[in-house]
Amino acid sequence: MIRQKEIVLPSFNRGYHLITRLIEREFSDLPAVGMMHIFLKHTSAGLTVNENADPSVRIDFENIMNLMIPENQTYYTHTDEGSDDMPSHIKTTLIGSSLMLPITSGQLNLGTWQGIYLCEFRNNAGKRKLILTLFE
Amino acid sequence: MIRQKEIVLPSFNRGYHLITRLIEREFSDLPAVGMMHIFLKHTSAGLTVNENADPSVRIDFENIMNLMIPENQTYYTHTDEGSDDMPSHIKTTLIGSSLMLPITSGQLNLGTWQGIYLCEFRNNAGKRKLILTLFE
Amino acid sequence: MIRQKEIVLPSFNRGYHLITRLIEREFSDLPAVGMMHIFLKHTSAGLTVNENADPSVRIDFENIMNLMIPENQTYYTHTDEGSDDMPSHIKTTLIGSSLMLPITSGQLNLGTWQGIYLCEFRNNAGKRKLILTLFE
Repeated sequence: MIRQKEIVLPSFNRGYHLITRLIEREFSDLPAVGMMHIFLKHTSAGLTVNENADPSVRIDFENIMNLMIPENQTYYTHTDEGSDDMPSHIKTTLIGSSLMLPITSGQLNLGTWQGIYLCEFRNNAGKRKLILTLFE
Repeated sequence: MIRQKEIVLPSFNRGYHLITRLIEREFSDLPAVGMMHIFLKHTSAGLTVNENADPSVRIDFENIMNLMIPENQTYYTHTDEGSDDMPSHIKTTLIGSSLMLPITSGQLNLGTWQGIYLCEFRNNAGKRKLILTLFE
Repeated sequence: MIRQKEIVLPSFNRGYHLITRLIEREFSDLPAVGMMHIFLKHTSAGLTVNENADPSVRIDFENIMNLMIPENQTYYTHTDEGSDDMPSHIKTTLIGSSLMLPITSGQLNLGTWQGIYLCEFRNNAGKRKLILTLFE
């Protein structure tokens, strides 16, 4: 059994944002045992699971990823859409744009410290679309 | 319901290559709602979803990944298979070797700018094997 | 059909460890055709598929990832849990914390050189929990 829906997230500023609650509230009846797949339909934002408690982790993510994949380098050739565009594509591929999460006893079965991050890499992005697929 | 097939891709040069059409044509009857999983059976190539329009994005991918994970560094100990081998293993793990993609209305439900990349990290690779698994 | 179990791995030292056999022995009856999903319930360790033969690959992984994401940098603000903590979170997101693997003819259908790695990023981690989910 597979169920699917498309949702639109609110706009987020550039940075790393917890969206666990936004995802959980999309289904009132998660199966006893199953999986949820989350797919981001964009190439300049990402999805990951990481620390859900201390906001300093998400600030450090922004800073470190910008050091690893800097903007405004002479080696970029894809520059028409702004200095944040090509680095965003690289970050998307390194972090990934989908998640597959276990469901147990009718809930997402995340670890105590795990939360779902929407990683917004663009300076001025619009709303991002997700496809949620439930396996049960 | 799960269906599975193994396919062999044509050989690709080192670099990042759009294979969306090659994948889509493997199934003449995608389900109305489902998922497709693509698994690459190799440790020196990768799969990702990224920008499908401007080839400069794929050229920049090759250049930036080579800057992040350079060849011929003294700290590599696994060097018997050539200077491109150990960097290829690292790239494989950072980019990933499988994809899970939603199917909606009988088609891969990718965003407007999303395409499937085969990332070939070796200088002289052979043909790569994929396992395609359909959930419906 | 979905089956699920939670397992606890033995403690591993910081580094990259092959756990293919540990995973395979958890099920005595894999389906003829299916998939196995492996989810790590932690934010400072990772899962990946990479070279299963030469241990030097796994040593190089440790060294290169430490060069890419160094400890003790002044730009980290999340430092209360030790110098290895924030780099561990970054590594987790770059490498990933789950795998989806095809099953064919009652076995994990990995390539000849592919093995499952548990990537332990902390200096003194405890036992790590995995959720294994079978699709058949």
